[in-house]
Order: sequence, then C-alpha cells, then structure tokens
Amino acid sequence: MTSKGIKPKIETQGMDISVDCVVFGFDNDQLKVLLIEQKQPIDTSIKTQKAVPGDLVMDNESLDEAAARILKELTSLKGIYLKQFFAFGDPNRVRGLKDQQWLRTFRVNPERRVLTVGYYSLVKLSEFKPKAANFAGNAYWVDVYNIPSLAFDHNEIVHKALLMLRHELMADHIGFELLPEKFTLSQLQKLYEIILDKKLDKRNFRKNILRTETLTPLKEKQQGVLHKPAQLFKRKLK
Amino acid sequence: MTSKGIKPKIETQGMDISVDCVVFGFDNDQLKVLLIEQKQPIDTSIKTQKAVPGDLVMDNESLDEAAARILKELTSLKGIYLKQFFAFGDPNRVRGLKDQQWLRTFRVNPERRVLTVGYYSLVKLSEFKPKAANFAGNAYWVDVYNIPSLAFDHNEIVHKALLMLRHELMADHIGFELLPEKFTLSQLQKLYEIILDKKLDKRNFRKNILRTETLTPLKEKQQGVLHKPAQLFKRKLK
Repeated sequence: MTSKGIKPKIETQGMDISVDCVVFGFDNDQLKVLLIEQKQPIDTSIKTQKAVPGDLVMDNESLDEAAARILKELTSLKGIYLKQFFAFGDPNRVRGLKDQQWLRTFRVNPERRVLTVGYYSLVKLSEFKPKAANFAGNAYWVDVYNIPSLAFDHNEIVHKALLMLRHELMADHIGFELLPEKFTLSQLQKLYEIILDKKLDKRNFRKNILRTETLTPLKEKQQGVLHKPAQLFKRKLK
Repeated sequence: MTSKGIKPKIETQGMDISVDCVVFGFDNDQLKVLLIEQKQPIDTSIKTQKAVPGDLVMDNESLDEAAARILKELTSLKGIYLKQFFAFGDPNRVRGLKDQQWLRTFRVNPERRVLTVGYYSLVKLSEFKPKAANFAGNAYWVDVYNIPSLAFDHNEIVHKALLMLRHELMADHIGFELLPEKFTLSQLQKLYEIILDKKLDKRNFRKNILRTETLTPLKEKQQGVLHKPAQLFKRKLK
C-alpha cells in the first residue's frame, strides 16, 4: 500500500551493528591505546590482524551494554567508563579482502554491511592489565603515536577518537583524574602536551589554565625535590 | 568452524539503520526545531504523529549522504550543514503501538530493530522555508521549549541534540553566524540566553566572552538607536 506522491518503500537487506572500543591509557609520560591481535583461525592460511576490541551487538542488547560486554570478553577489562563518540557507516567498511577472510571464520553473515558505533575511554595505564580471551589472541597497549595497520577502518576510528579526546581536553578540561590528587602545573602541562602531541608555551599554558577556574591552588608545595619546590594544585569541585 | 575458547558466533536477525535530522532555527528572539507530520495512510484509522525528519539509510549509502537526502525529500530543505551527534540504539525504540501501526504502512520490514544516527544543525530561521513532500504530510517550525509528543524516541533525540547544541555553544562559541556580521554584546548575550534557556548576568557574560578572544571590537557603534549606542563587534577570524 503506497499513498500518492510517496516514493516506493525502501527495502534494505538488513545490516549488522557493532561497537568498537578505543581505550586510551595514560601514565606520566606516555599515551597508549589498547589493541587486540585477532585469534588465528584453524585455517592457518588466513592472516590475523590487529584491531581495537569490538564485536557485534546482540539483538536485544543496548549499545552501552554491548560495549561493556565486548571489552570484557576480549580483554578481561571491566569497570571502565566508555563513552560513545561516533557512528562509522561507510557501506564497505568490512569488505576488504583480509577483513572478509577473517570474518568468514567468525561470523554467520560475514558479507553483511556493519555500522559500528565507536566508544572511547581514558584510563590510568598502570591500573588496567589486559588479558586476551574469546577471539582475541592477544591484548596489549601500544603507543598512540606509533600504531600499526589495523583491521577494517580501525585506524580511522582510533584517529577520530584521539581528535575527540583532544577536543574534550581543551573544551572540558578532562584529564585531572589521571594525575595524583595534588599536582603541579608542570605535571598538568605535560599531560596536555602528550595528549595534544605538541609543546606548549609555559607562560601561556599557565595563564590559560588558571583562568578556566577549574583549579584550586593549595598552600602546600612539592615534597622531595632539591630546588625550588613547585606549588601544588587540586581540581576544583563544581 | 569455531576455535577452542571462542564463544559461539553471534547470529543476529539483521537490523536497519536510519538517520534523524534535528534542525534548529534561530532568529532574534526564538529557537525553533523543524518537525514533520507523518502523512495519513489510506487506512484512516491509523493515527499520524509528529516527528523530526528521518528515514532508513539505503544499502549503499553513507550516513552523511542519507541525512542530506532524507532532509531534502521530506522537507525540501537543502544546503544545510548536518553534523552527526549520537547513535540511538535502544532495541525497542520503534516498537511502540502507534509507531508499529504507521511503520506497517510505510516499511517492508516494520518489525526490524532500527538503530538511528542523529544529525543536527543550527540555521537562520528566516532563510529556510520547509515544504513537505514524500511521506511528510506537513513540515513546520515549532518552539523548541514547547515540543509536542513525537513518534518513536524523537523527544529524546531532540533533547539530546539541544544538550549538544548548548555544549558546542559554551565550548566552541558557535552561533556567531546566526547574528549580523557586526553585532552588539547584548545581541550575543540574547542568543546565549535563548539557546541556554536562562538569564545570564550581564557583567559576567561580557567578561567571560571577551576573554575567549573570539571577538574583534570595532571602532563603530550601533546606528539608529536613540540613547547610548553600543559598541559593535565582529567574530575574530582564526
């Protein structure tokens, strides 16, 4: 039944939805991202690839539920706050030759179009030790500025997540929680420099960060340094 | 073929993907959102609903292409920059009774799960005159603070888009392009107040907006006002 002036109904073949999780890990002087190595299929002629942890969303599962489940199934990590950041919908994003070979081993409908919803997170590197399971043959942290070629469109997904992280850092001043409770402005500047991947001018950085009014200066100074201990700051509670 | 230690393959029923477009329109003293009224099916016992313009993504279409196509098909509006902001993935988001009745008329697979990707935009109200077509029976602007009950999860989608708009206004100072090229700080404050839906303190607003360094003060003053013409500003080019 169609009404006059209405285009014919669109008939789609049916698609799949997946989630992919970009987990950034920070410590004092490096920013890493969590990758898996796909498990080797029994057919050893099929090449495995590196990827961010991701899988299909089940029929009755919400996106947030799927993200938490999949990250845990593949890397054993749990209790990580994952935030949705972008939907990647290129019709051919899983149709590369290597991708299709691997999918034919692990998916019932490998040829289906898959839209993936990207999630990301920023955690303290030292607090999360990944351990591979399910179809992950390995799970490990890799320097975010030295990422190898990844499966599907995962290089693009990591890149977009990094841009989002930088935007949140500049706009919302996230990232304090990666520092000790009391920190110096030098520590904070270093965190910004590593995530933004550029040197910042010390005077401008201090001026700009102080006028965001997100920091409380403390009367305490750094302990255990030989010369000119720096002032400590805390994040201001809103 | 499954490898040891790997969970059985997930078999999904196949889903659909749609896009929904939240177009905000601003003029000097109001913020509106573009809605459609669904076209009346031949079976007049089926009730139509109001909704934001949205439809299924075709098999070989990207999300951005779909958003532009669908907005144009339903409302005749084109040349609007649409930005993806969130994927809505509740498994039951199209399974309401009224939603299902209407979908059975217009969709080949009305019972399928549909993930929708939300797009939004902010335009000058005066420059876009919607004209309903395809399965839109009507298309019109509605006050954003007085939105009726909408189909599917469209009230949630509009609400989330509004939060995103507010966040972009505060973080990135979008919105200048909705003002004349040269504007007063009072005009800018009014724009903020309408989008944020709250009164702002004049002194704090001026102090905060000036220190973002996004404005260039001009030597000109307002024309055609009787008392104390205000200084004019321009957006600073980056």
